[in-house]
Amino acid sequence: MNKINRVAIVGGTHGNEFTGVYLIKKFEEHLNLIKRPSFETLTLLGNPQAFKESRRYIDKDLNRSFLSQDLQNSTLSGHEEMRAQVIEKMLGPKGKSQVDVIVDLHSTTANMGLSILLGELHPFTLQLAAYLTSINPEVKVCYTQEQESNLLRSLCDFGFAIEVGPVAQAVLNAELFQKTEELVYAVLDYVERSNQGTIENIDSTLTIYRYMGTIDFPRNQHGEIKAMIHPQLQFKDYQPLHPGEPIFITFDGKAIAYEGTSTVYPIFINEAAYYEKGIAMCLTEKQQIEL
Amino acid sequence: MNKINRVAIVGGTHGNEFTGVYLIKKFEEHLNLIKRPSFETLTLLGNPQAFKESRRYIDKDLNRSFLSQDLQNSTLSGHEEMRAQVIEKMLGPKGKSQVDVIVDLHSTTANMGLSILLGELHPFTLQLAAYLTSINPEVKVCYTQEQESNLLRSLCDFGFAIEVGPVAQAVLNAELFQKTEELVYAVLDYVERSNQGTIENIDSTLTIYRYMGTIDFPRNQHGEIKAMIHPQLQFKDYQPLHPGEPIFITFDGKAIAYEGTSTVYPIFINEAAYYEKGIAMCLTEKQQIEL
Repeated sequence: MNKINRVAIVGGTHGNEFTGVYLIKKFEEHLNLIKRPSFETLTLLGNPQAFKESRRYIDKDLNRSFLSQDLQNSTLSGHEEMRAQVIEKMLGPKGKSQVDVIVDLHSTTANMGLSILLGELHPFTLQLAAYLTSINPEVKVCYTQEQESNLLRSLCDFGFAIEVGPVAQAVLNAELFQKTEELVYAVLDYVERSNQGTIENIDSTLTIYRYMGTIDFPRNQHGEIKAMIHPQLQFKDYQPLHPGEPIFITFDGKAIAYEGTSTVYPIFINEAAYYEKGIAMCLTEKQQIEL
Repeated sequence: MNKINRVAIVGGTHGNEFTGVYLIKKFEEHLNLIKRPSFETLTLLGNPQAFKESRRYIDKDLNRSFLSQDLQNSTLSGHEEMRAQVIEKMLGPKGKSQVDVIVDLHSTTANMGLSILLGELHPFTLQLAAYLTSINPEVKVCYTQEQESNLLRSLCDFGFAIEVGPVAQAVLNAELFQKTEELVYAVLDYVERSNQGTIENIDSTLTIYRYMGTIDFPRNQHGEIKAMIHPQLQFKDYQPLHPGEPIFITFDGKAIAYEGTSTVYPIFINEAAYYEKGIAMCLTEKQQIEL
């Protein structure tokens, strides 16, 4: 494992996810909190204009704006398209980044607890994730395999998101703020010890929730939703969902069952920002990985 | 008590409060649900453009745009200023409205349960509120005395809001949706029986939470918040708050106590849309009213 020279902590990639925004503000006021001897820590407020307006984004989701072709396209002029190019200048270029680790802080209206979202199953991030779950059993690890990711964290190899919830958009929840803060310090301490060579790799298994796909809300011919998340599923992220169990309830009170053939583990159930993306929840399968 | 001839149900006065929006859509598809023999029921989607954008408002809070002077000012050209004038044409004029009752459906990130918000203590609405609390003990009644209200519900004498929570902005919570729906039917049934003369006035006391004022978040010289709602107070709407008990916690983890001299009952604790209004919570006093 090469030495980690620079870690970037990013918050407010979505302007209405306040946990990350105010953690970045705190870190920038008290740099000693995130300073470690063996590497440099940068902070970045992802989308200040969107935060100013308490919105997820101005023109387009910033955290879907990091495809290489978009980063290289100088004709793009949407607010987030340009912001992504500016951020790539600071942290990138993609695939050859100035930072070795990106920690992108997000929050969600779903009951995601403290989630680590990975786009790569690299031994370093897996060991880090295993360490975080070992010190806090609330931590869950999700993995999405992608061709090329359009997410901010994909600017570097060891990029991941911390996703905390449930918390409403444009609101601070003190308990989740403090838990997220502790998790960031645990990441930094781990990197420090990794650089010092004092980490003993954990020789064990890690539970990961592997992304399988999404389910949209039932919709009418105009694209309007026709049903809500079923009360039995609301806030039940990471819990097993068996075939035949209810996932939606129509406005008339009729339950709609999950029609899959195997048990799955839904996450991002009823995330506010995903209504427009056609996502009522993501489905994952639970797997054990040998480290 | 004069006969009620027309009742207006309004939802989506704030575009990201989905409970009301989708109830209006449901009612408009199934008019029989809100039809009653002795009066006419109208429905209105308050701010369709804001709903389309999943935002509370486009230019300005619509539910603060109903002062008489603004409704009469034809030079105003903000989206909500104009929308308020259009709504007044449909339901008003203010003080001489075409509808006798307005039920304005709202939701909040605060733990307001099922709240009835009154701007007047008229015997009719008090009796109605007492009836609603009698059939569902979850129902709470709040009262704000005002010089002249700028709220949509102030267009008519018997206007009130139903405020449900906690639910994140731009999200549907099935359980709260169904409870709100039941409450609307209870209101309509009550009005019907009132018109039929078959109501026996409840001769008892009603608990109301009378608005006293607001508390803002602690802020720095730039107006940025310096603290969060204390975990002990989060979601504790309608519960007694005693002098000396913590209400905020700074980003450094220091508790800030309530410095008042009497026990109060905070509501709208940590409502997302109130950060920009300088309101961390509203304080009320609990009172018994003889009916």
